[in-house]
Amino acid sequence: MNKIRLGMIGGGSGSFIGAVHRKAAALDGHYDLVCGAFSSNPDICAQTGKELHLTSSRVYASYAEMLQAEAALPRDQRMQVVSIVTPNHLHAEPAILAMQHGFHVIIDKPLALTLTQGLQIEAAMNQSGCLLALTHTYAGYPMLMEAKHQVHSGRFGAIRKIFVEYSQGWLSTAVEQSGQKQAAWRTDPQRAGGGAIGDIGTHAAHLAEYVSGLKITHLCASLESKVHGRRVDDDASALLRFENQASGILIATQVAAGEENRLTLRVYGEHGGMQWSHADPNSLLIKMTNQPIQIYRTGSSYLSAAATACTRLPAGHPEGFIEAFANIYVTFAQAINAHNSNDNSVPTLDYPSITEGLRGLAFIQAMQTSSNSTDKWTVLTL
Amino acid sequence: MNKIRLGMIGGGSGSFIGAVHRKAAALDGHYDLVCGAFSSNPDICAQTGKELHLTSSRVYASYAEMLQAEAALPRDQRMQVVSIVTPNHLHAEPAILAMQHGFHVIIDKPLALTLTQGLQIEAAMNQSGCLLALTHTYAGYPMLMEAKHQVHSGRFGAIRKIFVEYSQGWLSTAVEQSGQKQAAWRTDPQRAGGGAIGDIGTHAAHLAEYVSGLKITHLCASLESKVHGRRVDDDASALLRFENQASGILIATQVAAGEENRLTLRVYGEHGGMQWSHADPNSLLIKMTNQPIQIYRTGSSYLSAAATACTRLPAGHPEGFIEAFANIYVTFAQAINAHNSNDNSVPTLDYPSITEGLRGLAFIQAMQTSSNSTDKWTVLTL
Amino acid sequence: MNKIRLGMIGGGSGSFIGAVHRKAAALDGHYDLVCGAFSSNPDICAQTGKELHLTSSRVYASYAEMLQAEAALPRDQRMQVVSIVTPNHLHAEPAILAMQHGFHVIIDKPLALTLTQGLQIEAAMNQSGCLLALTHTYAGYPMLMEAKHQVHSGRFGAIRKIFVEYSQGWLSTAVEQSGQKQAAWRTDPQRAGGGAIGDIGTHAAHLAEYVSGLKITHLCASLESKVHGRRVDDDASALLRFENQASGILIATQVAAGEENRLTLRVYGEHGGMQWSHADPNSLLIKMTNQPIQIYRTGSSYLSAAATACTRLPAGHPEGFIEAFANIYVTFAQAINAHNSNDNSVPTLDYPSITEGLRGLAFIQAMQTSSNSTDKWTVLTL
Amino acid sequence: MNKIRLGMIGGGSGSFIGAVHRKAAALDGHYDLVCGAFSSNPDICAQTGKELHLTSSRVYASYAEMLQAEAALPRDQRMQVVSIVTPNHLHAEPAILAMQHGFHVIIDKPLALTLTQGLQIEAAMNQSGCLLALTHTYAGYPMLMEAKHQVHSGRFGAIRKIFVEYSQGWLSTAVEQSGQKQAAWRTDPQRAGGGAIGDIGTHAAHLAEYVSGLKITHLCASLESKVHGRRVDDDASALLRFENQASGILIATQVAAGEENRLTLRVYGEHGGMQWSHADPNSLLIKMTNQPIQIYRTGSSYLSAAATACTRLPAGHPEGFIEAFANIYVTFAQAINAHNSNDNSVPTLDYPSITEGLRGLAFIQAMQTSSNSTDKWTVLTL
Repeated sequence: MNKIRLGMIGGGSGSFIGAVHRKAAALDGHYDLVCGAFSSNPDICAQTGKELHLTSSRVYASYAEMLQAEAALPRDQRMQVVSIVTPNHLHAEPAILAMQHGFHVIIDKPLALTLTQGLQIEAAMNQSGCLLALTHTYAGYPMLMEAKHQVHSGRFGAIRKIFVEYSQGWLSTAVEQSGQKQAAWRTDPQRAGGGAIGDIGTHAAHLAEYVSGLKITHLCASLESKVHGRRVDDDASALLRFENQASGILIATQVAAGEENRLTLRVYGEHGGMQWSHADPNSLLIKMTNQPIQIYRTGSSYLSAAATACTRLPAGHPEGFIEAFANIYVTFAQAINAHNSNDNSVPTLDYPSITEGLRGLAFIQAMQTSSNSTDKWTVLTL
Repeated sequence: MNKIRLGMIGGGSGSFIGAVHRKAAALDGHYDLVCGAFSSNPDICAQTGKELHLTSSRVYASYAEMLQAEAALPRDQRMQVVSIVTPNHLHAEPAILAMQHGFHVIIDKPLALTLTQGLQIEAAMNQSGCLLALTHTYAGYPMLMEAKHQVHSGRFGAIRKIFVEYSQGWLSTAVEQSGQKQAAWRTDPQRAGGGAIGDIGTHAAHLAEYVSGLKITHLCASLESKVHGRRVDDDASALLRFENQASGILIATQVAAGEENRLTLRVYGEHGGMQWSHADPNSLLIKMTNQPIQIYRTGSSYLSAAATACTRLPAGHPEGFIEAFANIYVTFAQAINAHNSNDNSVPTLDYPSITEGLRGLAFIQAMQTSSNSTDKWTVLTL
Repeated sequence: MNKIRLGMIGGGSGSFIGAVHRKAAALDGHYDLVCGAFSSNPDICAQTGKELHLTSSRVYASYAEMLQAEAALPRDQRMQVVSIVTPNHLHAEPAILAMQHGFHVIIDKPLALTLTQGLQIEAAMNQSGCLLALTHTYAGYPMLMEAKHQVHSGRFGAIRKIFVEYSQGWLSTAVEQSGQKQAAWRTDPQRAGGGAIGDIGTHAAHLAEYVSGLKITHLCASLESKVHGRRVDDDASALLRFENQASGILIATQVAAGEENRLTLRVYGEHGGMQWSHADPNSLLIKMTNQPIQIYRTGSSYLSAAATACTRLPAGHPEGFIEAFANIYVTFAQAINAHNSNDNSVPTLDYPSITEGLRGLAFIQAMQTSSNSTDKWTVLTL
Repeated sequence: MNKIRLGMIGGGSGSFIGAVHRKAAALDGHYDLVCGAFSSNPDICAQTGKELHLTSSRVYASYAEMLQAEAALPRDQRMQVVSIVTPNHLHAEPAILAMQHGFHVIIDKPLALTLTQGLQIEAAMNQSGCLLALTHTYAGYPMLMEAKHQVHSGRFGAIRKIFVEYSQGWLSTAVEQSGQKQAAWRTDPQRAGGGAIGDIGTHAAHLAEYVSGLKITHLCASLESKVHGRRVDDDASALLRFENQASGILIATQVAAGEENRLTLRVYGEHGGMQWSHADPNSLLIKMTNQPIQIYRTGSSYLSAAATACTRLPAGHPEGFIEAFANIYVTFAQAINAHNSNDNSVPTLDYPSITEGLRGLAFIQAMQTSSNSTDKWTVLTL
């Protein structure tokens, strides 16, 4: 079986997440990057294609051109899946068009600018029969799969408390006014939708639900723009209520000055709890009542099948962000291959998809609604 | 100058906090325990006095008896200050009576069962001219004094975010129904007032305000009783608004199963932030934008005068909870000696007193009000 | 039963270890400091007595005077035990004289300046029937008692490797030439005996043997004076061979610039190992093959009786250096009380005494011999 | 410019280091794996080629066949560089033959079975003009580049102490007797040369010299086989003397039961020191006398050019072992491209090559000589 032929929309030289997608796709040898529409700037687009050692004929001026041209290529040459790594306002249109041309889609979170757009993507997906993966990176970390496994095994009993925090400091000043490109679009309501709540809050909410297996049902949020002149929220906090009478806290801030990329999750049940931190992603702390604290470590023989399946190295050889990202790419490759061969067996591993994407958009919307309300609790549905 | 003669109300053998007070008072050699009314159970009371090598004539059957008898002793023999380490419902009466007899008072937090009681204590204090110290232990940790110093120095710029958490797991089951004495009174509304919010939430709120120098103005709280049949809250969360547009989160829970005594504080300003954890109390992390993380360490030459004044050992020799507790005792001893010698000079160090005590009671009340309200924000005054 | 009446030789105001002894003795209320010969400087001596609230008649100009005067006091008033906290060259004489007068002795490590002196102390001890405690502080940490317990329980199988390190940085420059009093005597061969090897190497060697239960049989050492002009070693390393074919490494250096007081111990057997660090003394890491790492924590219900007996606070309330020191004082108080009441029952806890003291002196001597030798291995006996 | 065409000798399905090389080569998109002789077992070889999506015509039965066949291909199709990932006894022959055919070589450490073989490789390299990279992975970690930079900047003053440790536990039992393939060859003197000292000791020695910039001049070693029946050393310790009067300790053991892959380095100079641990590879601790401890973090703006050049992600996004490995591949790609284009400019980054390889072999030899000697010190030259 050949490698899966991958195309990319966005991700011109100097972009952050485009390069991450490419390295994640390359790492395990299951994808071959064959084409791209990397930038609306033709020079950047061409330069990126060259740096990536692509044939110039498959470096396209626009995604529309790329989708059309690739669809016209012979079946055994043309792109099979496309990664969309553009700002949020440019997710829905290319995704829908790609699926209309029969291409599977990998898309960065949040799924789209609005829930309405998200539902349009869902409709296109259902009509086309294409697959869609949403790169909720953190679900790709083996120790979070292990955490999910342990919660679901019932070890902790009924879950009572869920604390999730995603704090960064890079927007502590008005960097968007000094030409920082990443900051510019991420703080532009027209291009980003929300601010911190969309950029990192969706990761936090997804993680809380992913590991606990419980849905947020109500939230009480406070969104703020701490930096003068900022046009989106850069700081969010919420009290959370989950199914089954669990409750918790969500923090998502980009003005925690001095913090890099602090993502932590804790989940407590009747008998004990777990703790994971992105700063030490290969460790999972388990604290059971009246027992020594345990540290579960990536690559160890005692881990669950899911955690083991997503680990490349023996214990003590750190894997990081790109490996977690790559785990989503690998899982999606398996799904595509199963799809192509009409294999209906249930795979070991799952990947975040349209459901998680729509839920993220509903979460953003509920957080904004709650923050504007004087009522304590706002319902989160979908 | 002689040691200060100390008496104790409560703290019979087997109690937790009474023994802590005694060790804290003894550590630095400034107090001499001379008398006590340790328990309403005469056997326990006598036994405790014996274990403490006290003269049996100064081991009293009740605090009322003790206060009267001690007041009748010659001035150079009688007790000068009394530590009240009883359950919360037995704070106000002995404190007021003690001050009416001219004794200074050390009292464990929360100050009293209700704000009303707290105000009565304040009145007695003002009438008597006696001093009162409230053992908000954590303010006795040198690295929190350093944190306060750094915040106040302006190093972080205007403070924007304050996250404080105090989590324990020991009330994850209904231990109060199985004869655990500590649990029994701490979960009894008549004896404790609040649950987690009074027992540990007051510490958290005090710490947030102490280090940041900012008062909580509004809060939005959710109090819960996670354990079936429990009569007080065992879990509290709140969104916080502070003066000067700072905001934050407070967590105080006793059902974080598997946690010991997890107290953490983080304060972020425009230029950086600080982080302290009770699990590693001799370290203070400072994170400034675009600078290496710094770890300030107890006993180091670069610390502020306040942190240095409260440290006994060279760097690398851990001091802990009792030492922090003792710092409040030492500071209070200095205040008593200054008071006795009519010394009006301003001391280097301060100790938590009636103001902090009343504020803690107002905090408990506001948290309870907010939790029962469907409005988002409740005002915290006093 | 009354408190034990304690005297002190050395420890004038400003000294480090004298104050530690006093606080350790005071902490748990079993000792009453009644007298002292704190300094050969009469002003310092008097001042120290005053600060300690002592009766001036029991503040003595010399230890000889003190021992004689106290021995002449009525039995129920006179000192019962004396702590010797002078520089190493002033250990043997006062210890011997004290025991000749019938006083028990607490002495700081190393026991004496030379092994010869140590043997003289042993002789005096045997003749007098007095007890002697050596303050090998680290043996007072509950988690090292737990470590010892776990090693002895056989959990790790036969012990193979023992790594012990004690590193400090405070002698990285020639501070002894700038009037630093602590540095002056500790780097003076006439007053200290050895340098790093005596001051901290003896702690390291003791700890390795204490926890592993194995004696060092051979060593291969390199002692150096890294700082120009220094008259004693300030840096020591050794390959170690233990009984039962275990082997290891010992590091003791005072020129690890930037280090505070880094003491770590690791012991590995056939099935797993343990790790303890003075920087986090309330945790003990246990690593068993193919199992999650475990963190044992002070104050937890699952600990051994010895560890529990030496812990004052619930889990999550840090205890530190003074508490560990105090554990030796408490244990010695129990031994003295048992001695006084002719109680021959075997106590739960042991304290370092003459055997450990002599072994420390033999260790210093063997390290010096080895360092001067071109042979690889030097035998350590006694 | 096209990707560099890579071939591989060894690394059949299920091997550890072959897969690491492939992922490292793939990660950054500079190499294209075009051929391989993955195993002497034809089935495994073919299966591996298939899994790697290779054309079957370029999956070869032996390295000799591969080298000959690839050399016969047109210049723009044939392999340009070959990675040799076989057991140590199969390094020299294929490396020499590859260079004789004009292929650059990437080779896993140690360079060869013996120093004699290493010198033969050097001769072939000199004759052929080919380039050779040795995958001393740890030199690929950005924070070790930063450490090297800081040492060389003189920040710490003259270096005095170097402590390096590489401890694993996986050979704590005789796993080589139970069919574990990795263990089988690594404990076979004919295939591995040395045991722990070659497998991981060479990494430790390289790292100590790489960061400190100082060569080991003398060593005093003790090699042991702790597991009954083992035919190579599984445990090594050494006192080290370096140039410029620095000294240190090296530990390399594979019987530290319970340890995963514990590699730590500390280097101390006159004014401070540094500490790095593979367990937290994106942090570098700097401890300067009388200053707060600093933690330098990968991806931060204040790092040296070398550290920055080898980092892919913003601070707070962990990179790990494969990324470090890939950094050597990237640097070597730059060297190959410069070589191919006759570019003589000095590159920013260096990669470990023949010099480091020969030095590693000399180190193994000196350790073995020393361990067998009764003299304390053995000279290490070359």
